[in-house]
Amino acid sequence: MTDGTNRAWTMAVRPEAEPSAETFAMTETAIPTAKHGEVLVRTLYMSLDPYMRGRMRVAKTYAASLQPGDVITGEVIAVVEQSESPIHKVGDTVRANIGWQEWAAIPAHEATPVNPDLGPVSTGVGILGMPGMTAFFGLNAVLMPKTGDTLVVSAASGAVGAIVGQLGKLQGCFVIGTAGSNEKCRYIVDELGFDAAINYKTQDISAELARLAPDGVNIFFDNVGGAVSDAVFENLTLHTRIAICGQISQYNDEETAQGPRNLMMLTRNRATVQGFLVYDYELDHDMAKARMSNWIKEGKLKYKEDVVDGFENAPEAFIGLLTGKNFGKLLVKVSEEIA
Amino acid sequence: MTDGTNRAWTMAVRPEAEPSAETFAMTETAIPTAKHGEVLVRTLYMSLDPYMRGRMRVAKTYAASLQPGDVITGEVIAVVEQSESPIHKVGDTVRANIGWQEWAAIPAHEATPVNPDLGPVSTGVGILGMPGMTAFFGLNAVLMPKTGDTLVVSAASGAVGAIVGQLGKLQGCFVIGTAGSNEKCRYIVDELGFDAAINYKTQDISAELARLAPDGVNIFFDNVGGAVSDAVFENLTLHTRIAICGQISQYNDEETAQGPRNLMMLTRNRATVQGFLVYDYELDHDMAKARMSNWIKEGKLKYKEDVVDGFENAPEAFIGLLTGKNFGKLLVKVSEEIA
Repeated sequence: MTDGTNRAWTMAVRPEAEPSAETFAMTETAIPTAKHGEVLVRTLYMSLDPYMRGRMRVAKTYAASLQPGDVITGEVIAVVEQSESPIHKVGDTVRANIGWQEWAAIPAHEATPVNPDLGPVSTGVGILGMPGMTAFFGLNAVLMPKTGDTLVVSAASGAVGAIVGQLGKLQGCFVIGTAGSNEKCRYIVDELGFDAAINYKTQDISAELARLAPDGVNIFFDNVGGAVSDAVFENLTLHTRIAICGQISQYNDEETAQGPRNLMMLTRNRATVQGFLVYDYELDHDMAKARMSNWIKEGKLKYKEDVVDGFENAPEAFIGLLTGKNFGKLLVKVSEEIA
Repeated sequence: MTDGTNRAWTMAVRPEAEPSAETFAMTETAIPTAKHGEVLVRTLYMSLDPYMRGRMRVAKTYAASLQPGDVITGEVIAVVEQSESPIHKVGDTVRANIGWQEWAAIPAHEATPVNPDLGPVSTGVGILGMPGMTAFFGLNAVLMPKTGDTLVVSAASGAVGAIVGQLGKLQGCFVIGTAGSNEKCRYIVDELGFDAAINYKTQDISAELARLAPDGVNIFFDNVGGAVSDAVFENLTLHTRIAICGQISQYNDEETAQGPRNLMMLTRNRATVQGFLVYDYELDHDMAKARMSNWIKEGKLKYKEDVVDGFENAPEAFIGLLTGKNFGKLLVKVSEEIA
């Protein structure tokens, strides 16, 4: 089952633009032992998410920056292999913020149970985890969709966007997604039931929005920023609400990208732009997970996982994530559930 | 009193950047006569406001564009000289949207009474008119200040900004204004009671904000946009609220100016940017005018008028307004109250 080694990926050097293989270094240490009050966990799946790029910056973000030598931040699904706490028992599946490593001994309260009745355990860092909660609360707490609203979602085939669009359809919206390939565009329309898709790499986003939504965009869930945001700002309508979830188009930029200073568009339309973080709604996460789990079982909500096999492949997968190479929620499979 | 001529300023040619003398043409027609249901009004004061520049564009704004030959848009304070309606009697002072002209015959219901008990009639297009209402509702309905909030106001010596800052002080805020000269900066601090001022032409706005508001900006009333907005975006705090009233720094730009695409700053701080228009709050304008009139009489609220004498000088005054040459609410005095 193990040779006693715990492998971890650390940030070797701070990336200046796109992260590269040199950004990352693998360390090997002995698997630790749980002390009193702790659990020892073995990683099954690592979640790779765009926000991790932000942690590699010096600039203050909403969480602390990584320092060179630190293990890369991230949530994992893991199994408890040793427990020195009544909170979890050996064999329990948990979610924990241990970063990119195979094993960790952590305080038991820092591991959150993953309820296998809700869905496959990998969904605990996907549609029933942070990306799913981000979609649910960004849509329902920030954008508050009404039946008949035209909803635009950027990065619409991604881990968050795909859920936002489907939830929008369930709530009676006309849903337009932007994505970076014709395959992804077909997927969100044919498989997920979006009303329309725009390929931001090959189409004139603003003109397509004007054609698809001649009365303007009522709500916009933005994961991307940059040119997609600019295009939506040109297609607002009265009281458009915009939720800023992420700005992946800019995460590799050393300096803040320049774009139109188009805030006056908000005045004309009495529009609102609001930033939000999923953790602000933590008390209601269980409610949302139960609801979304039911929709998945009823076939009303679909998800796609892009599973990369092997701990050693995490850096390459992450580099691809920032340029849209993944298709679905990106996971790294580290070990088998039954080891 | 009159030679029977009505002079009007029209838009001769659409300006491409800064309006110039060639933008405007004066026409002379016979003074009209009020028909049934109308009043004939004689202009006392014309209000010159930055929003008029927007009307000169082809691009859609929240109101219709001017066409070459049209009389320049604008509100005036006028006196009724002939009435064919029971709504107003001869001698009444009214506010009306007749544009830049000396006389007009208009439907009586399009003239709004100006209550002389509230203040000098010129305030009906100033602190007790559209600029004052914009300040009151932008602050109270959009930004909703709380005691102890740090409030930043741009164009702080202008018709709107000067009121916003004083209302903020009355409501217990720490108020920082930006203005374009040391004289204006001294005025808002020494005369209006702002806590601090930043000269955006000579100082590093972002660094000054960081020094004056080390815990960040809670609320920002933006009349200016551009570099001032960029600097505030660098100094947000948790749940900062930003009201976009105007973006005068960009009104003369043919293309939307480029600046940092800094929407991610909103996410980190769960901040909100909202556009608004004063007309959305029209039902409550009388309440606000009564309240502000009392504050003026009690000496708690001050205003400054920059009165240019003579109808013929309106274009030059307007050109100066867009570059900050005025100091106080810009009015053109067209004729005497008692003619």
